[in-house]
Amino acid sequence: MQTLWDHRYAQRTQRMKGSAIRELLKLTEQPDVISFAGGLPAPEVFPVEEITEACVRVLRENGGMALQYGSTEGYLPLREMIARHTSRYGIRVSADNILITAGSQQALDLIGKVFINRGDRVLVESPTYLGALQAWNAYGAEYITVRTDDEGMVTDELEDALRAGPKFIYVLPNFQNPMGVTMSTERRRQLVELASRYGVPIIEDDPYGQLRYEGEHLPSVVVMDAKIHAQNDRNGNYSGNVIYLSTFSKILSPGLRLGWVIGPTEVIRKLVLAKQGADLHTATFNQVVAYEVGHGGFLDRHVLKIREVYRERRDAMLEALEKYMPEGVRWTRPQGGLFLWVTLPEGMNTTELFTEAVENKVAYVPGEPFHPCGGGENTMRLNFSYCRPEVIYEGIRRLSQVVKAHLK
Amino acid sequence: MQTLWDHRYAQRTQRMKGSAIRELLKLTEQPDVISFAGGLPAPEVFPVEEITEACVRVLRENGGMALQYGSTEGYLPLREMIARHTSRYGIRVSADNILITAGSQQALDLIGKVFINRGDRVLVESPTYLGALQAWNAYGAEYITVRTDDEGMVTDELEDALRAGPKFIYVLPNFQNPMGVTMSTERRRQLVELASRYGVPIIEDDPYGQLRYEGEHLPSVVVMDAKIHAQNDRNGNYSGNVIYLSTFSKILSPGLRLGWVIGPTEVIRKLVLAKQGADLHTATFNQVVAYEVGHGGFLDRHVLKIREVYRERRDAMLEALEKYMPEGVRWTRPQGGLFLWVTLPEGMNTTELFTEAVENKVAYVPGEPFHPCGGGENTMRLNFSYCRPEVIYEGIRRLSQVVKAHLK
Repeated sequence: MQTLWDHRYAQRTQRMKGSAIRELLKLTEQPDVISFAGGLPAPEVFPVEEITEACVRVLRENGGMALQYGSTEGYLPLREMIARHTSRYGIRVSADNILITAGSQQALDLIGKVFINRGDRVLVESPTYLGALQAWNAYGAEYITVRTDDEGMVTDELEDALRAGPKFIYVLPNFQNPMGVTMSTERRRQLVELASRYGVPIIEDDPYGQLRYEGEHLPSVVVMDAKIHAQNDRNGNYSGNVIYLSTFSKILSPGLRLGWVIGPTEVIRKLVLAKQGADLHTATFNQVVAYEVGHGGFLDRHVLKIREVYRERRDAMLEALEKYMPEGVRWTRPQGGLFLWVTLPEGMNTTELFTEAVENKVAYVPGEPFHPCGGGENTMRLNFSYCRPEVIYEGIRRLSQVVKAHLK
Repeated sequence: MQTLWDHRYAQRTQRMKGSAIRELLKLTEQPDVISFAGGLPAPEVFPVEEITEACVRVLRENGGMALQYGSTEGYLPLREMIARHTSRYGIRVSADNILITAGSQQALDLIGKVFINRGDRVLVESPTYLGALQAWNAYGAEYITVRTDDEGMVTDELEDALRAGPKFIYVLPNFQNPMGVTMSTERRRQLVELASRYGVPIIEDDPYGQLRYEGEHLPSVVVMDAKIHAQNDRNGNYSGNVIYLSTFSKILSPGLRLGWVIGPTEVIRKLVLAKQGADLHTATFNQVVAYEVGHGGFLDRHVLKIREVYRERRDAMLEALEKYMPEGVRWTRPQGGLFLWVTLPEGMNTTELFTEAVENKVAYVPGEPFHPCGGGENTMRLNFSYCRPEVIYEGIRRLSQVVKAHLK
């Protein structure tokens, strides 16, 4: 049916599609479905008590400020806290290098707004984070993909892709969404060098970096970039080739919608202009509360607890996969993060299997939408942070039944 | 100095200019400057106690939900509460007609994203709200202006402007930002009829509608549209030609960043897709707290208190202007809202006067930037909600001295 509004939308609106994940999540909201589809933190690890105390203290001592309009850049003590935290990793960063955003998703949107002209190509891993594609599709982005294996983006194939003239490179080096894989140090170095040689900036998305359950912390791409180039601004702060994103969603609470961008001050200034038009500023109250909860070092201790809970759940999922999945099914073994990635034998189709899986009371996200240039029909993303170990066991058992029933 | 990043930005980034207001605000942050420049609510009217109680209750009873990811549309009970509130005004609206946004500014941005192609023309009042221009400039909007007088947009001049083919009409009918004027009922009717005849949608921005200090409430444009056209969707809900915006910023707290859009469900669905890419959803915690504070009717009572405080401040400013301003200076007499508008004699320039005013320890916003097609050099916007009456008196006295010193 033709309506009053049909002809009124902008061209870019034709390209906006609902996130497959969010649409699927609606199907899986029946309480008896075990869902590995979302990317939800476990509510059991939300520091409810600490947040309550912070709310009360902030409102009592500084309610007039916390409930008032604030600066677009973000609450200065929070930016300074993030700068101090970041400077621990061998890179000099001040509050001027930092913008507070409404979660990392807003950072992706603002980056699209500031950098992408219609038809610009963005170089991404394949598969890559769906929310980034969704943000950038609205600005008319096209994509160049580089294959990803168990050590992250295959940087040996990066140079060919760089010759295709991308506007920027987007990577998730730690416990990548959706695959759960981590980029090796050697590949990070190669990435930084090639990007610099070709004059192409890097967007480093690191929502899960603190959630490592085994192995050594690897240096961030932004830190390697700073070391290789020693590109510093007048004040000695970072001024290189990388824009780094992170978030409080996984270490504090996603419902507060707090993320941050670290970048050269000139880039931050452009992002600030874009954010002014987008929402004036991030909620003052949420920022002050996050500072109040975090500035004494609580989050460093809290992360230890989250790691413990999620490590157990990851292990449960890996064990259950080992126990129940038939031969020919492969999966990644993430060292951290929230997700692992299952590959079924060639010829199987996880989108087709999805309805039957939900009938069998288990859900996942089919892998295809994570591939902007196609592929991945036989893959799926599983989340292991949300369900308790015994539920994970039962869910993987159900999923295995569906897979077995369709094995050729 | 040419930097690494200069050639990397998108075309639209060239059009992003800092909001004149926000840059000026920085100049006026010295504590001894009396600033009429911002648009800040008075912190004395923030219901700190009620918000504290709501935070504690929400976190105790429902912390796992309030701190978790939520739906893009917004927290259902909050949308239902807004729907009930709106339905009081003779228009049928359900939660499906409502999207919760990060303040009204985000609603303006999402509307730009969903509707504006580069070069599309938007029909606005002149002067109009600066934040709307800032949001839409990023999408390449051009503007058609219609003159505004003491009864709002001069609708007798609207038909000519409609023939120039605008994508939509943007109006602030109640206590307009920046002028403080209110559109008469007759002009509202004319606007709704002409927009419908020419097939051009209306964006009705109503952040201050509840803050009326005298006179009768006038019907919203969206309500008049619903009555004239009886355009209803399958469920009998609103499905007309208007998208209506409002906010909790002026009746609860701007630091929570909560606004809402009311529109036909098909439009809401498009805005939801745009919002998914922009920030996934508005902070869950803030929405649940706003519902907790508001659902028992507290805001209806609280608004009475805000009106009393702001009425007194408006009166103080009007009295002070009467007492101190020299002949030849005119100003509006707002029936509500936060602002009034001063017009100096022709030939004077408020942008040029600004530095001297700040030296004289008083600040305002020059009127020129509110005019997207130029004009208004001799005008200024004054805010009366933030300062106490005695401070308003002193500020207007200082401002009058500056004006007098430059009178030709």
